[in-house]
Amino acid sequence: MPRSIAFDLLLLAQRNPKPCPVLGVLDAGETAGPLLPGGDVRTDLPAYRVYEKGRLVAEPTDARECWRDDLVSFLIGCSFTFEAPLERAGIPLAHVEQDRTVPMYRTSRRLEPAGSLGGPLVVSMRPIPADRVADAVRISARYPAVHGAPVHVGDPAALGIGDLAEPDFGEPVDIPDGTIPVFWACGVTPQAAVMESAPELAICHAPGNMLITDLRDEELLAP
Amino acid sequence: MPRSIAFDLLLLAQRNPKPCPVLGVLDAGETAGPLLPGGDVRTDLPAYRVYEKGRLVAEPTDARECWRDDLVSFLIGCSFTFEAPLERAGIPLAHVEQDRTVPMYRTSRRLEPAGSLGGPLVVSMRPIPADRVADAVRISARYPAVHGAPVHVGDPAALGIGDLAEPDFGEPVDIPDGTIPVFWACGVTPQAAVMESAPELAICHAPGNMLITDLRDEELLAP
Repeated sequence: MPRSIAFDLLLLAQRNPKPCPVLGVLDAGETAGPLLPGGDVRTDLPAYRVYEKGRLVAEPTDARECWRDDLVSFLIGCSFTFEAPLERAGIPLAHVEQDRTVPMYRTSRRLEPAGSLGGPLVVSMRPIPADRVADAVRISARYPAVHGAPVHVGDPAALGIGDLAEPDFGEPVDIPDGTIPVFWACGVTPQAAVMESAPELAICHAPGNMLITDLRDEELLAP
Repeated sequence: MPRSIAFDLLLLAQRNPKPCPVLGVLDAGETAGPLLPGGDVRTDLPAYRVYEKGRLVAEPTDARECWRDDLVSFLIGCSFTFEAPLERAGIPLAHVEQDRTVPMYRTSRRLEPAGSLGGPLVVSMRPIPADRVADAVRISARYPAVHGAPVHVGDPAALGIGDLAEPDFGEPVDIPDGTIPVFWACGVTPQAAVMESAPELAICHAPGNMLITDLRDEELLAP
């Protein structure tokens, strides 16, 4: 995001820590940092989405062409991090088994706005066997830096989600028998704020195409 | 702090969450907010310190005279919050028993800087009976929003503190026999950054003279 609105984004994150857990912020113009030593935030993601005034104008795999020296990069935790501990606990993940990107949905819940930025809460959904929901809550809660415990369990309509088969981002998954949809706050949330609030420029990850760092999952465990 | 450096302060807090746990940020010019409904951040503190270019220029009990509409107010957690649960657990607090303000010290530990702001870690010190240190750690750790677990136990010299009897802020306490000094990150830290980094203007709390809100201690327990 341009430096001129970086405060608004950082404040949006402070006010909405579940969808926007900030792991690191690079200084204006910086392309590497402690979380990606020797890396380049403009090229290390699999795919980017570029928004101008909230409108998607490009989806490149290299963001150097649209880079500006006044851009401040925010690295936000991703719930994929706690999928490994969920799997180690024997909790099946339908989107992994079905080889799909996790489905994500805009909800009717609104963020606490900050300055020029506001928008809806975006969630990721994983169908979890009814007898493992408590374990999924308990395990993910140990990772608040990557969205932590679910924000909602069960009825999608209560979040304003009309049809689980039509996610706003990612891909739909078949819901296995005996499972219940569990919803976690999602790092696409600030991107939805960009789409709604229409800052002059924002370069985001393409949903499902996150930066992978050298940080170990264990380092994100709550103390 | 002026809006022009509010990003630097919020980023300083993001990079140094133990000394700078942000509970809330008021919009520029705002004097009330969710943490102080119907209140006024310019008058609700017992005393203020006003810094111009890092120099202490006034210590009023009313900050309205130096208020500007571009000032952004940061509400930062205070370790006084977990003193009630420490006392309920039967852990004696020397500064309370001796009716002194908790002693605070600049340390030789440096903050991770952010933009124009940097400085030393400031700590508060409580002498804790040796057999209760573990309990004090365990209980305070449950309150990360008010500095959480101690940053150091024992030898003050390892933090660059020469003489416990000469605190930089607050008042010295007599160290009871059988206790060991325990150091917690302190909310005076951003004020020390102001003194060192010399922004044009900053209005801070006078150390030991914190804002008291209607928030209950229990609401600050980690999930």
